[in-house]
Amino acid sequence: MKMAQLSARSGVGAPTIRYYIREGLVPAGELTSPNQAVYDDRHLEALRLVRALIDVGGLSVDGARAVLANLGGGESAAETLRAAQYALTPAQGSGHAQLDEALARVEALIESRWWSVSADNPARWTLARTLLALEELGATEVLELLDAYAAAAEEVADREAEVLERVGTPREAVVSVVALDVLGDRLVSALRRMAQEDALVARGGGTGTQADGGTPQR
Amino acid sequence: MKMAQLSARSGVGAPTIRYYIREGLVPAGELTSPNQAVYDDRHLEALRLVRALIDVGGLSVDGARAVLANLGGGESAAETLRAAQYALTPAQGSGHAQLDEALARVEALIESRWWSVSADNPARWTLARTLLALEELGATEVLELLDAYAAAAEEVADREAEVLERVGTPREAVVSVVALDVLGDRLVSALRRMAQEDALVARGGGTGTQADGGTPQR
Repeated sequence: MKMAQLSARSGVGAPTIRYYIREGLVPAGELTSPNQAVYDDRHLEALRLVRALIDVGGLSVDGARAVLANLGGGESAAETLRAAQYALTPAQGSGHAQLDEALARVEALIESRWWSVSADNPARWTLARTLLALEELGATEVLELLDAYAAAAEEVADREAEVLERVGTPREAVVSVVALDVLGDRLVSALRRMAQEDALVARGGGTGTQADGGTPQR
Repeated sequence: MKMAQLSARSGVGAPTIRYYIREGLVPAGELTSPNQAVYDDRHLEALRLVRALIDVGGLSVDGARAVLANLGGGESAAETLRAAQYALTPAQGSGHAQLDEALARVEALIESRWWSVSADNPARWTLARTLLALEELGATEVLELLDAYAAAAEEVADREAEVLERVGTPREAVVSVVALDVLGDRLVSALRRMAQEDALVARGGGTGTQADGGTPQR
């Protein structure tokens, strides 16, 4: 197909497609003359993946390139997952006393749930930094929910692993990891916001009156 | 305290603090002479909130300003939550046949779970766009997990609503909403990644062999 058709089928404007090609996010078309290139389903698929990462996942062009560059080579679902997690989370050093303390709490959480999590899984740092930020904000009530969040993640994880294992080709592994982690985070975030609104309504609309008459705590 | 102390206590460099003040994210200090300003705990708290939004939540300076500008006036937990959800999710029009279809599926999900979700909750659009992106990618297995994700969100939501209701002052409401939604998303994302790794390990390391010998599906 020509550029105009690729643009129509993908819903992405031709200038944006050319930009993605220049940036190495989408392969170049095959030249049929010096000024004419043709594209196929491979290009359409690549565009959809890039759009998912950037438009829905909120990644930058550089972030999307890093994810795509690191994903191709994984030989198993676990390796692809790990590569994606690295690409999605910038490496963060430790050596800062408070962060080390927060990392130790992450380790304690992992042990208490009997999870197998490799020592270099970058989610450890993400979680530790988030715990620190919550503490600094004084949002200790949210910290009390940590175990409930962990239990909820655990409940879904086995079905997620099943999805990851089911894939056949490296290309399918890339799609599954992007779907589960980048889009999955958006999905979970949207569902949480709706469920939160519902829970507030169920408690009486959150109109500022406290049913139990308790004193505000913080 | 002086700028040097504010910087030391917050861990944020003085040039960055001045930038936040110019951008209206942190209030200016009180001038004690034309070239000398003093700061107090209010400034330290504002800085911690901005850092949480930008460094941990990954928002842009403009995004952080929008969240902070929209949060102050909420009179109840539900209003503050709604203001935060609006600020965190850019408004997205519909009128696109596929998106309307995806929005109808979001509505069906909400009904099937008996959730009360206002018609203008922006999470509806976030979820609809994410469902569309998943379909376009052909990641239908992840769509099959939608109900499991919704159930997990529901399980934690009542305790989250309790946290939101417990707050006393508007400032506390702002902190709780940032903690639950911005930092909460990071927290949940990190926990999901660790639980996923654990589930893959539990299934035999995700070494690419399929225990059931089934054909790859997609």
